[in-house]
Amino acid sequence: MSTKLEQLIYYLSRLPSVGNKTAKRFAIHLLNHKDNVMMPLARALDDAAQKVHKCEICGNYDDTQFCYICLDTTRDTSVMCIVENISDLWSLEESKVFNGRYQVLGGNLSTSANYGTESINIEHIVKRIKDENIREIVIATSTTVDGQTTAFYIMDHLKNKGIKITRLASGIPIGGELNYLDEGTITAAFNSRKEFF
Amino acid sequence: MSTKLEQLIYYLSRLPSVGNKTAKRFAIHLLNHKDNVMMPLARALDDAAQKVHKCEICGNYDDTQFCYICLDTTRDTSVMCIVENISDLWSLEESKVFNGRYQVLGGNLSTSANYGTESINIEHIVKRIKDENIREIVIATSTTVDGQTTAFYIMDHLKNKGIKITRLASGIPIGGELNYLDEGTITAAFNSRKEFF
Repeated sequence: MSTKLEQLIYYLSRLPSVGNKTAKRFAIHLLNHKDNVMMPLARALDDAAQKVHKCEICGNYDDTQFCYICLDTTRDTSVMCIVENISDLWSLEESKVFNGRYQVLGGNLSTSANYGTESINIEHIVKRIKDENIREIVIATSTTVDGQTTAFYIMDHLKNKGIKITRLASGIPIGGELNYLDEGTITAAFNSRKEFF
Repeated sequence: MSTKLEQLIYYLSRLPSVGNKTAKRFAIHLLNHKDNVMMPLARALDDAAQKVHKCEICGNYDDTQFCYICLDTTRDTSVMCIVENISDLWSLEESKVFNGRYQVLGGNLSTSANYGTESINIEHIVKRIKDENIREIVIATSTTVDGQTTAFYIMDHLKNKGIKITRLASGIPIGGELNYLDEGTITAAFNSRKEFF
């Protein structure tokens, strides 16, 4: 096979959960659609690589110094949601449930991934709380061991600062069935049960 | 979201079986690995789009006028394998079972996909048989209705030309279990049963 083709397949296989077989399928599809997919994708990659950067405030990706969320004056600036990574931020944005600002951590505290407390820029969060006059912090890290550890670490640093700190509720996913759920989720849902009347 | 990012996500979602969610994951992964994945991928795409073309003989993709298989003088030039598409050719190459040359059809005869007999360049195949002194044609189209129709169409055109025409065997896949297989496969396997002694 030609080196150009091999290189293409190699770099396509570097995409997350794309193996050699899928990369080959991608390559053939791209070559079959040179003008309307392959060339525009090459340009889009090049463009985005050069223009898209992390927002200096929250860490979201955008092609401006501050991202469109941080620049949006119609949003509620008194609430900040702390997320693990940018895809979590995008998921929350899609759900349209939150209208405040974000802070992307970039990862969870993890001994196995060698991600320590120095990687979480807690000073930046503390500074933002003061500068932006934030009244509520919503911690939206995942409910894995690492995510919980990170949540507690942040809570510990932000307590006694006179701000409200909340955490996304744990419970049964909408559409979920009890007999498919683990004990941890059921226990959490039971303990957080709500009164109807 | 920035237009650059939206464009990137849009073109990534044009890859086969990649939806919006996966495209976003790809975009974030790429932006997180700008130097060692994103930029090289952009270059590889651009390079391949400009240099990789279909081989003028068999239809395989390569960056030379004739592909490396057609140029390989150590291969058996008397056998030609007819495949539906380039990914089938690559799969056969990976299995290392075949050492002859190929002809890529580009598709199967299909009324639903509007792919008629004019799309299959049967004259090119007939010419190749004469020019390259081919003695055996292995038809490796798939065993779908369209693939079988295509196989019969080709067989019909090549009969009485004094060449051997073969078709890949149908039967139970290696590692397959009878109770998971459809009747068609079981019937084919039964009818083509082989004698042990």
